[in-house]
Amino acid sequence: MQLALDCIPCFINQVIRLSERIGFDEDTTRNLMNTAWDVMKNSPPEITPPEVALQVYQTVFSYTDIEDPLIDLKSECTDMALALYPGLKELVRHADDPLRMALQLAVAGNVIDFGQASTFDIQAEIDKVLAAEFPIFDYDSFVRAQDKTDMVLYIADNAGESVFDRILIEEMKKPVVYAVRSEPVQNDVVYEDALQAGIDKVATVLSSGAPTPGAVVKLCSPEFLDLYDSAGMVISKGQGNYEALSDETRPIFFLLKVKCRHFSHVVGVPEGSYVVQLRNG
Amino acid sequence: MQLALDCIPCFINQVIRLSERIGFDEDTTRNLMNTAWDVMKNSPPEITPPEVALQVYQTVFSYTDIEDPLIDLKSECTDMALALYPGLKELVRHADDPLRMALQLAVAGNVIDFGQASTFDIQAEIDKVLAAEFPIFDYDSFVRAQDKTDMVLYIADNAGESVFDRILIEEMKKPVVYAVRSEPVQNDVVYEDALQAGIDKVATVLSSGAPTPGAVVKLCSPEFLDLYDSAGMVISKGQGNYEALSDETRPIFFLLKVKCRHFSHVVGVPEGSYVVQLRNG
Repeated sequence: MQLALDCIPCFINQVIRLSERIGFDEDTTRNLMNTAWDVMKNSPPEITPPEVALQVYQTVFSYTDIEDPLIDLKSECTDMALALYPGLKELVRHADDPLRMALQLAVAGNVIDFGQASTFDIQAEIDKVLAAEFPIFDYDSFVRAQDKTDMVLYIADNAGESVFDRILIEEMKKPVVYAVRSEPVQNDVVYEDALQAGIDKVATVLSSGAPTPGAVVKLCSPEFLDLYDSAGMVISKGQGNYEALSDETRPIFFLLKVKCRHFSHVVGVPEGSYVVQLRNG
Repeated sequence: MQLALDCIPCFINQVIRLSERIGFDEDTTRNLMNTAWDVMKNSPPEITPPEVALQVYQTVFSYTDIEDPLIDLKSECTDMALALYPGLKELVRHADDPLRMALQLAVAGNVIDFGQASTFDIQAEIDKVLAAEFPIFDYDSFVRAQDKTDMVLYIADNAGESVFDRILIEEMKKPVVYAVRSEPVQNDVVYEDALQAGIDKVATVLSSGAPTPGAVVKLCSPEFLDLYDSAGMVISKGQGNYEALSDETRPIFFLLKVKCRHFSHVVGVPEGSYVVQLRNG
């Protein structure tokens, strides 16, 4: 998916909030905003948002010595989600259809996002997701795909959200490979963040090889791509992975919250919607 | 008030939505975005958001022959508000304190805004404002000022919102001069829009002389400034007028909905709050 006009001010907003979080002064922030603007202005038309995000975040991160400037934020999000974990497990245990409940919760977890919004209330989001109609909810296909496959490739999105992914993985009956980013970008989950969420207890954690916040296939490792080609079921979390993978031809289940106007147009559902969509199924 | 970093991507967003509304193609929109960016990049640090808005909107409007590109949107907003008018008058009539109710409704009307949000649900906003606690609500001062003054200068904001202003004006016991923008900018109310809302039946409609979406004093007409200096009570609607007038030293009642993160910091209340604030009182 190509960079939309709406993405441009959104990335500038991210530079501002990221700079605040790191503690840059206003002059540095302005410089970074100008650099990000130039990156987007001079990008080829076919560039995807995750590729732009990588350049923008690498530029911002290059102004600090800290290797993973959002590590504290990510860790806080994971701890917050871990505190909710026992209650969420109870919800799943008492649900008429535990897998369905776990799937809905995994989508709710996608609200944890630094890229698009700076604040979120995860408990309010859980209440909302439980009351919401999903305008696209390909649940029967999801169950069928799970029953048929030998292995599930689960392409992760944000730190903290991983705890919600873990709850879904625990309800799935097949082995899961959990693919994380190869290096810190946005608040996306990297290997260490996944361990903090306890994903290693329920799945094999693997880097996709892609440093972009979205598994851009041409940047992924051969090891990941072998799994991607052979897996009977692929799950993709969040808008970034959708942007990277929506033009692919293999069947993929996209689990996400629609967080912006542009995505609302692309997916054809209202902003704020929760989606479980099988493409190429 | 100076342009904040947050204002920059917000104006870029406005260029995108305005271009869509006018029907510009993507290349034109990109050109306009780049021009708006350069305007902001090269502005002196003391420039206010309404002054930037003027330059940005004048640039966009210069690409079309239509004199007031948002005239249809403004007219629709006014018609929509006029359709609500009889019901709102009933609400006021049956309220324990009709002036207080009318004041709250006037703040609710501030949700009508193209500058900051592209969609709004005015009925939902009315329900929200009636249920909301105003974190700043200088009502006693408002009543005292009204009782003491001979004349109220009411500095308007958006088209459509004017219908809500009219309801407040009808409950006030003093003559009101209603100041509008001197020429089309954003969806701000100009003379013709005020007539459509029926303001001329309850107040004297006057241009502030300022073409900015916010009554920047140095740009206002001598006629307006005479009234501004002599009026016993000045009411200012919306963020744009707040940005233009918050550094003034005379007492002013600011009525607004807090529509962005930056304003939330400035006013010291949560985003989405409704405010009736007397400054320099």
